Amino acid sequence: MRTIEWKEGVVKLLDQTKLPHVVEYVETRDYKDLIRAIKNMQVRGAPLIGVTAAFGLALVAYHSKAERREELIKELEKVSNEFKATRPTGRNLYWTLSKIMDVVRRMEGDTEELRRRVIDEANKIAEEDVKTNLLIGRYGSKLIEDGDVILTHCNTGLGTVEHGTAFAIIKTAHEEGKQISVIATETRPLLQGSRLTAWELKQAGIPFKLITDNMVGFVMYRKMVSKVVVGADRVTKEGHVVNKVGTYTIAVLAKEHNIPFYVASPLSTVDLESSIADVEIEYRKPEEVTTIYGESIAPEGTDVLNPAFDITPPEYVTAIVTERGIAYKPFEDSLKELVSRG
Amino acid sequence: MRTIEWKEGVVKLLDQTKLPHVVEYVETRDYKDLIRAIKNMQVRGAPLIGVTAAFGLALVAYHSKAERREELIKELEKVSNEFKATRPTGRNLYWTLSKIMDVVRRMEGDTEELRRRVIDEANKIAEEDVKTNLLIGRYGSKLIEDGDVILTHCNTGLGTVEHGTAFAIIKTAHEEGKQISVIATETRPLLQGSRLTAWELKQAGIPFKLITDNMVGFVMYRKMVSKVVVGADRVTKEGHVVNKVGTYTIAVLAKEHNIPFYVASPLSTVDLESSIADVEIEYRKPEEVTTIYGESIAPEGTDVLNPAFDITPPEYVTAIVTERGIAYKPFEDSLKELVSRG
Repeated sequence: MRTIEWKEGVVKLLDQTKLPHVVEYVETRDYKDLIRAIKNMQVRGAPLIGVTAAFGLALVAYHSKAERREELIKELEKVSNEFKATRPTGRNLYWTLSKIMDVVRRMEGDTEELRRRVIDEANKIAEEDVKTNLLIGRYGSKLIEDGDVILTHCNTGLGTVEHGTAFAIIKTAHEEGKQISVIATETRPLLQGSRLTAWELKQAGIPFKLITDNMVGFVMYRKMVSKVVVGADRVTKEGHVVNKVGTYTIAVLAKEHNIPFYVASPLSTVDLESSIADVEIEYRKPEEVTTIYGESIAPEGTDVLNPAFDITPPEYVTAIVTERGIAYKPFEDSLKELVSRG
Repeated sequence: MRTIEWKEGVVKLLDQTKLPHVVEYVETRDYKDLIRAIKNMQVRGAPLIGVTAAFGLALVAYHSKAERREELIKELEKVSNEFKATRPTGRNLYWTLSKIMDVVRRMEGDTEELRRRVIDEANKIAEEDVKTNLLIGRYGSKLIEDGDVILTHCNTGLGTVEHGTAFAIIKTAHEEGKQISVIATETRPLLQGSRLTAWELKQAGIPFKLITDNMVGFVMYRKMVSKVVVGADRVTKEGHVVNKVGTYTIAVLAKEHNIPFYVASPLSTVDLESSIADVEIEYRKPEEVTTIYGESIAPEGTDVLNPAFDITPPEYVTAIVTERGIAYKPFEDSLKELVSRG
């Protein structure tokens, strides 16, 4: 089951706002629908946002009425910038769009060849995501032992085209026959843990318990957790991990209880250029905190902080699992080495 | 505005499940309604649960058809045990019921004198709660400085008859003209932070921001918090603090960021007899986690952990503010000394 697919000029995607009770796919030929889907989180997760933007460029290339090469490139550049503005924190969005636009600008050929190439690149990026996650799962599973209880936060399984990042590790360990179970945090405000991760764990037949985010301290204090595995929206060259808000809270608790804290991240999420000071944290609208499913849970006019992400410094991170192996500290060296192998 | 009141054979209480959008009082002559009110959290907070149980005994004493003294005592004992079974973790419930039943068993006098005495004791306990909280506010406010941003968890203001414990400290500092603001955690699963604390802070005109529970790490990392003030459901003789689940998570984060962590607790919440191993943590029903306002947020049959409380060991606690002054470490000595002054 894929979260997103390309079918000759049409993008089909799983509407993640409808889960867990309704499994609904939407189809579109208009890239603007994909921009909306990213903004309102019908698709989410750094890798999937990247792929969605890639398919957005593919839709433009496919349906464009441009006759001249320059016209098409200009159109693609405009749309690329629109996608870049949707969610500023994740790394893959920039990486994917830059990758495709670089190819477009460099290649020879007429409009038709350009169109075909953009579509091919988008599909290649989607396929690579799937392969990458399988490799992350295989490397990461080596860290998991029989009897482990793995705490995970937010959702990574549906945050990619297939398999997930942190979720791939859990699924691979389970498929290899390791006796594991999972504790999933609900992940307020948008409940990706209870809506998406719980749903995926059920589908996969992996035993799990759901907790509210503030119970992480409790389950660690009671020695109910042996490992933490989370995903990442961006990893800086020093090993700072930008991920769904709440990740840092879990990392501090894991350190306090001597529990290994693993981050699953494709190398396309690793940003060797910028340092943590350059990372912009996205603040989302207050209604995500003051309402749940349209139901108001706070007094009118309540002032809110709603950062979508937080930053976990490298000292809290035990290892970063990538598709080319596991990076240990100092991450500055190990990440650089893994990226340079490509 | 009081959360509970006695009016000749009738108990009137604020239904806290209806806030913040509906301010509704219910009246009853039947102690069974008070048992239900405690169980379904129409009243909550350790001190208020204690007072509610006291008024439960007062209702029994007032309306009992017992003619003989022994009959009435037996009836009170039966009801006292019913109240004790409602919520096992909080200290005040036991303390209050034991106090009244001790008086009842020891006193001379006929049925009428007994009735009157139970009602008087219950009202005295309610009045003492109000006075205690004002004193906690006055002592605690000395710890608060101009410019402080105070993070608080769950709700204490409506968890007492009036003023609250942690909330009394915040309110007193504000009333004394200190320029403070508050960050309130929403406190899943039952949202006492967003529903109750946000409502009280608005009523009191104290500036505040609401966050989800998993954002505590973020706001501390960003140096947006200067002090933590929370309440307690039970404090053991060694200074272990049993409080709303999520408190321990906040305490670990506060220690990691060198932020003082203060606990506001009347001495009736301090339990010098038992140690932390004796404390039973109440697990509540899974639907509190898998639904919000009746709306299902997780797949059917999702397995859940739902502890209502957690335990914060004394090493994370900077000081405990009581109605007789502030206890510092070692708490074993300071708490004993404060209790013995009574």
